[in-house]
Amino acid sequence: MTGGAEAGDGIIFKRSSCPITNGLNIFGDKWTLLVIRDLVLGKRRYADFISSPENIASNILADRLKRLETAGLVCRRVYQQKPVRYEYVLTEKGNDLKPVLEAISRWGKKHCPGTDVFRPVDPPALPVSKTGSTNSDFND
Amino acid sequence: MTGGAEAGDGIIFKRSSCPITNGLNIFGDKWTLLVIRDLVLGKRRYADFISSPENIASNILADRLKRLETAGLVCRRVYQQKPVRYEYVLTEKGNDLKPVLEAISRWGKKHCPGTDVFRPVDPPALPVSKTGSTNSDFND
Repeated sequence: MTGGAEAGDGIIFKRSSCPITNGLNIFGDKWTLLVIRDLVLGKRRYADFISSPENIASNILADRLKRLETAGLVCRRVYQQKPVRYEYVLTEKGNDLKPVLEAISRWGKKHCPGTDVFRPVDPPALPVSKTGSTNSDFND
Repeated sequence: MTGGAEAGDGIIFKRSSCPITNGLNIFGDKWTLLVIRDLVLGKRRYADFISSPENIASNILADRLKRLETAGLVCRRVYQQKPVRYEYVLTEKGNDLKPVLEAISRWGKKHCPGTDVFRPVDPPALPVSKTGSTNSDFND
């Protein structure tokens, strides 16, 4: 028994059919949601993510961006041809993690004294959700 | 530079002063929030957590419960003297992770086809939040 589970429609799950488990299979680590945070804040390029204060290692960043692309949470697009350089943007599936980030942020502000939210970068490039809310949601 | 950061009141953070980062320092892995989920659903004892469909390994469970206790998210209490056996309950700090679980659950139900929430166990022991909501919140 390896913890796999089958949903009614024949889908095989790696650990169980719990939606929390399946979310954590994608972003259950110390780094992935920080990359999503940076994207929500307006960062798009490799050097932008590297510059964040957590000092993510280059190989970890590359791995997480690849996994996020494979899972359909970010898409990569060329912003320069010679040499070819890429930037990353959230898909709707990735952007839908905003409520998760906001919930964690509220918990952290309440229970980890001294923490404070990061401000959006590059304001003209801020993504705006379908409901018209902006990244200022992190400030609540 | 190791990614440490100092808040205005002299608190030293391990990676940064971001509340999301500091939350993930505690529960940023594939297992910790599943233990919290089980506690919210009414599970309290070691064997209860072990019986969950994800088949958490005994050493991982012991490690996560210890960390959660150290971080003040669960408290341990004796429920049997000979031999001594313990059960675990959420503190307010741990219970405050419910909105995080609910946000992840909503994301998983939307984006991981075939997933479905787990039902509460042992209904008489269900924790009730200060706002009077019960674990049925997982069903939204």
